[in-house]
Amino acid sequence: MQFARIRTEDGRILTGVLGDGALSPRARLGSTEAAGPDEPLAGATLLPPCEPGKFIGLWNNFAAAAEKNGLSRPDHPLWFLKPATSLAGPGATVVIPEGVGRVLFEGELGVVIGAPCRDATEAEAAAAILGYTCVNDFTALEILTAEPSFPQWTRAKGYDGFGVIGPVVATGLDWRELTVKVMVGGRERQSYAASDMFMGPAEIVSRLSRDVTLMPGDVIACGTSLGARPVKAGDAVTVVIDGIGDLPVTMAAA
Amino acid sequence: MQFARIRTEDGRILTGVLGDGALSPRARLGSTEAAGPDEPLAGATLLPPCEPGKFIGLWNNFAAAAEKNGLSRPDHPLWFLKPATSLAGPGATVVIPEGVGRVLFEGELGVVIGAPCRDATEAEAAAAILGYTCVNDFTALEILTAEPSFPQWTRAKGYDGFGVIGPVVATGLDWRELTVKVMVGGRERQSYAASDMFMGPAEIVSRLSRDVTLMPGDVIACGTSLGARPVKAGDAVTVVIDGIGDLPVTMAAA
Repeated sequence: MQFARIRTEDGRILTGVLGDGALSPRARLGSTEAAGPDEPLAGATLLPPCEPGKFIGLWNNFAAAAEKNGLSRPDHPLWFLKPATSLAGPGATVVIPEGVGRVLFEGELGVVIGAPCRDATEAEAAAAILGYTCVNDFTALEILTAEPSFPQWTRAKGYDGFGVIGPVVATGLDWRELTVKVMVGGRERQSYAASDMFMGPAEIVSRLSRDVTLMPGDVIACGTSLGARPVKAGDAVTVVIDGIGDLPVTMAAA
Repeated sequence: MQFARIRTEDGRILTGVLGDGALSPRARLGSTEAAGPDEPLAGATLLPPCEPGKFIGLWNNFAAAAEKNGLSRPDHPLWFLKPATSLAGPGATVVIPEGVGRVLFEGELGVVIGAPCRDATEAEAAAAILGYTCVNDFTALEILTAEPSFPQWTRAKGYDGFGVIGPVVATGLDWRELTVKVMVGGRERQSYAASDMFMGPAEIVSRLSRDVTLMPGDVIACGTSLGARPVKAGDAVTVVIDGIGDLPVTMAAA
């Protein structure tokens, strides 16, 4: 199934399951029961498929990137939070803030939580995962390292629009078979196998659930691998994960 | 005025203005217009006075602490996010998670945003501040520094219950006149003048509003000064700021 959230032409916001040219509304993300008649997608706008109470990002979770950067597998997920106001959806215009230096795209697999989850075993964690989405975890590289005494993870990754998710939350996928790609101007710029993760989704969720209570709609971006690159105003940047879909944005100057 | 949020004996959650033994309900935090009859406080529970979409914490914002630690005034606020699930209110029981090592209290002044705020001048920022609250920004010290390649600010400060705010949002205060105190078991353990901040509330809000859009109910903890100390299960820990009130919690073992 593919859960999506839309704004209808007349301004209503609906969560539901994508069907043939229509959305079957649901009372909430992950509900199996229809909560109203089908809503045509024509004229509607796709929104971020959920509104995470916690939008978590991981660093150093891919073997190939770690090897290149001289890092080793961490014992526990190394994570930061992206602010709620960084959230954007498919088709968004992402503004490159003035004076921040280089901004990189980072294509990532996003894990979407479906049920409250705390101190979970890996089996419990796997059951608490609703599905997967595409993430573009934009990062202002020079801001991240501007202050030697304090790496500014959240600031660098927290500008409005820097947390792009969507187009849907897809259920029933085997994450080990997914490939995360990023296209810039139609040209493939990043492509890596999700199976290269140090910690897979169930291990991540289990371990994070010892740090915080995870809640339905929370999103965990699993980290990126090699190939993240700077973007410039005017670039069309699309994260593609087959089985989830295309997550396009357009970069703009401030 | 003092804005508070309560759960009534019969389970309703109300935001409003504290009066003599009663809460005058408001449609939202900061509203001046009553939204219903007064609600008696007897039997009601004080909740965190707001539910911040962003709960921001600052590091290295006090001159005395910086001097002691060999740090200098940063050019821009050095900030992290505390997760929504870390939020707790007056009277909470704060669990010290197993195996995290020392947990410190950190008494802080909290700035509460009243209006959306982006790229604000200091004057605009000052106008967007609704008022002030007490914050206890609990921190698992060894977790913060456990991984040399990645200071774990959000993890160390993000456990459930580690973000205590309240008892109210007080308006009309001059922050320069406030003193932040922390009592442990009735003994004063931390006491410092808010006026020792490197950046005051309006400058903080103005600068942060260039990083993110601040929204009503967002909370910015202004950082702590000297005197933060470890706590243990059973400790009664109270942040006290005259003009705002007492923010007590009890520490418990996991």
